[in-house]
This record gives sequence, C-alpha cells and structure tokens, in this order.
Amino acid sequence: MTPAGIPVYMQIVEVMLERIEHAALAPGDRLAAERTLATEFGVNRRTIRQALEVLERRGLVQRRQGAGTFVSEPRIERGAAEFFHFTEDIRQRGLAAGSRELNLERAVPSPFVATELELSPGAEIYRCHRLRTINSQPILIETFALPADLVPGFELWDMSERSVYEVMRTEYDIDVLYARQSLEAVALSEIEAQWLGATPGAPAMLERRLAFDDRGRPVDYGTDLYRGDRVRFVTDAATVAVPITDKTTSGA
Amino acid sequence: MTPAGIPVYMQIVEVMLERIEHAALAPGDRLAAERTLATEFGVNRRTIRQALEVLERRGLVQRRQGAGTFVSEPRIERGAAEFFHFTEDIRQRGLAAGSRELNLERAVPSPFVATELELSPGAEIYRCHRLRTINSQPILIETFALPADLVPGFELWDMSERSVYEVMRTEYDIDVLYARQSLEAVALSEIEAQWLGATPGAPAMLERRLAFDDRGRPVDYGTDLYRGDRVRFVTDAATVAVPITDKTTSGA
Repeated sequence: MTPAGIPVYMQIVEVMLERIEHAALAPGDRLAAERTLATEFGVNRRTIRQALEVLERRGLVQRRQGAGTFVSEPRIERGAAEFFHFTEDIRQRGLAAGSRELNLERAVPSPFVATELELSPGAEIYRCHRLRTINSQPILIETFALPADLVPGFELWDMSERSVYEVMRTEYDIDVLYARQSLEAVALSEIEAQWLGATPGAPAMLERRLAFDDRGRPVDYGTDLYRGDRVRFVTDAATVAVPITDKTTSGA
Repeated sequence: MTPAGIPVYMQIVEVMLERIEHAALAPGDRLAAERTLATEFGVNRRTIRQALEVLERRGLVQRRQGAGTFVSEPRIERGAAEFFHFTEDIRQRGLAAGSRELNLERAVPSPFVATELELSPGAEIYRCHRLRTINSQPILIETFALPADLVPGFELWDMSERSVYEVMRTEYDIDVLYARQSLEAVALSEIEAQWLGATPGAPAMLERRLAFDDRGRPVDYGTDLYRGDRVRFVTDAATVAVPITDKTTSGA
C-alpha cells in the first residue's frame, strides 16, 4: 500500500489520454459509453466518471448532456519564447485566421504603463483590443498599448487583415525585436468568456508582454488571453547551452 | 463610439491591477469597500463587482463572504525554459520547501510512455507522484516515470528532503541535461483540487516533460501540475539571436 495512494481512475486517465492524443480516437469521436468503459477497465461507473472529469478539466473531451462524451479539437502548439505571428502562422497551418476589433482608441495611459513605455509626462497611447479567430472560432483576446507619438494616426489603418506589428514595421519603420514575456494560468471572467465563446471560470492562458524595437525602445505593452483548451506552449529546457552530439569537438 | 466597446470595468481592472502589483497594496491587505471604490471611480457598485470578478479570476484577490476582498500572495516566478530545481530554488528565495510522497511504485508503463522512454518490451518504470509545498502550502503535484533498469532500487531512498533528479545524479550517475517541455492552462479535477487545497475547476498550469540525460537517453517522462494562482512562467522572446547593443562589432 502506498502512502496516500493514486486513485485507480488516474490510471484510467492515462490510458484514455493516450487513446486521445496518440492513437485510436480523433476529434469529434464519441467515447464508448460509461458502462462499456467500466466493463473494459473492470471498475464501477463512478470511477469512470471521475476519469472523464479529469479529461474534461484538461480540455481533452467535452461531455454533452444526453449525447455522450466527445473528443475535443487538439490544441494549437506554439513556441513560448517566440513571437506569435498569428495571421501568418495560422495560415501556414492551413487554417483561416480572422480578427475582430473590439476597441481602438487614443487614451491616457495608467502610471504603470507610462513608466513601462518610458513615456514623457502627458504622452498618450493607442490602446487596441482585438479578438482573434481560427476557422471563425474565437481563440484569443489581444491587447496592445503603443506610444501614440511613435505611431501617429494609427487608428486610420484597416487592421482587419493585418497584424499590429506588421503595420508598425511597414508604416512606421518600427521593428519589434524582443519582448519580456510571461505566462499565467487564469480563469475567464464573464465578459472574456462571452467574447471567447467559453464558460465563465474556464481556464485561460494569460501572456503578458513588454516589447522592444531594434533601438531598444519599449514600443508595446500588452497581453494575450487564450482559451486554455485551444493552445499549448512549447518551453524546451536545457541546463547548459552545449550541443550533446559530440563534446570532443566543441573545446576552446 | 468603438465597434464593440471595452466596458468601463476593464479600465478599473487596469488601475486596480497596478495598485496590487506595483504599488499601494500588499498581500493580505483588504481592498476598500465596493461603495468606496464606486464613489472613487464614479461608477455604480455593479461595475465595481465586475472589476473585482476579473481580479479574482486572475488570482489577484480573494473575496471572503462578509469579510471583504483581500490581496492574494504574489505568484512565484520561474523561467519556463529552465529546469525548476524546486527545493534549492525555493530555499534561495527564503521560503520553506516541502514534499509529501503520494505514491512511489514499480509499474508496467502504458504503451505511449514505453515508446517515449524507448523501453525494451517488458521493461518497467518507477512511477512517482509527489506533492510539493512552499511554507507548508501545497503548490504543485509532480509526477515522474523513470526507466526501472536505470534506477534499480529507487523506492528505497528517503525522498522527503531530496529532488528526484538529485537522487538520479548522486546515486545513479544520471545527469538530466535537457527536456522537451510544454505548458497548458487546465482546470483542477476534484482529487487534484483536494491535494492542492484549491477548488475543483480552479485554473492550473500543466507542464509536460520528456527529459534526456547527457548521453541523449530519455530518462524521465512526467508532468508538473501547479496551482494557477501561485506561479508565473517567464518566456522572454527574441526574433533573432543578435545582441542589440552594438551591431557594428558583431560582423563575421
């Protein structure tokens, strides 16, 4: 007997996870009935329901009242330490990238944003909120705060088919080069859930960003708020920056 | 008038966010009463409640029935693309790192784990689940799957004060060098919430990991499941790996 014990249903979760992610089941497929799974695994239906709850919480299946449990769309993968060129990147995957402007206005920044963007006293920002879609399904809410002096007339561009950074580069000669970024798991508020077609309280990934151009100027302070069940961030790790293939040739 | 309009309460959220993260308010502080905030911002109490909902969903404040709204503990920051040496790292921050073993057993791996770990047919794994704590508060559930042949007798070590990777290095001469990793925002299932002292459905960060040693062998397949309100992953981004200080000196 183990100290606290991993419940049997967690082992069922592992097996089901594999079927969903690596093999037999495709998006939209219906899982076998609880009764059938209970027989297969030799457990009672309560245990199966617990396993299905974990899978649902992780965004891998959706339970529809009276209809059964269905495999969800797989997550979109992106590199966590890369700029996400949404429009280009989504098109390259053969999917349709869309955009809906929620808000674009010239505004007085809050003191913190003014400090982060190193603005002069009284300087303003363009504040931009957009809803981005993949195959017409909402996936993320973008926000940007751009120093207004750097992008005069920013509100005049038609942004429906363009990325904010592409407009900055093409129209204002501002190359965004690097960003201080972070990721947090949060829950969706009511309005955010409404925009994203999700349930209030559903998990979301919040990316915060302070971006700099090739002259080292802060040029954007913003956030991306993703539906948690639609995206995965790759964060490969290494303890040392040495290629492992042949250490004998890498000497000084 | 803007296309869809950002509600007033999102602007209040921004201001409150700054007070919590950058200035006036400290963990444990009580926010001003809804009535007081409504007067300050010149809005009605419903708008203030909407703003507080967003802050609560993001894990920044906790509302306690009848007592008011309190500022939460700040998140622990860590690099997303680094190995998290929990015990060392938490101690270096002046906090107490703790561990509780939920499960350690020799087991037959699932086919996918066997493939990922490149195991021979019939080879077994050590499966380890641990609850990690900071100042006695549960913060993450670690799981590991180690090829049993590489770490014979792994169940005999006292792991209460040691990290799994430290034992692998010290006792088995296995140096974990790099890992394929990813992050997803998920929700806690009932048992996970129970272990982490959180509410079922609360947001969590799921890190998946396949780790390799200095000989390129896969030596661990595992996951870390963090309370979403307690951790932030730094994911700084760059478009090109060129120092921006002086490009003229970096020529070939």
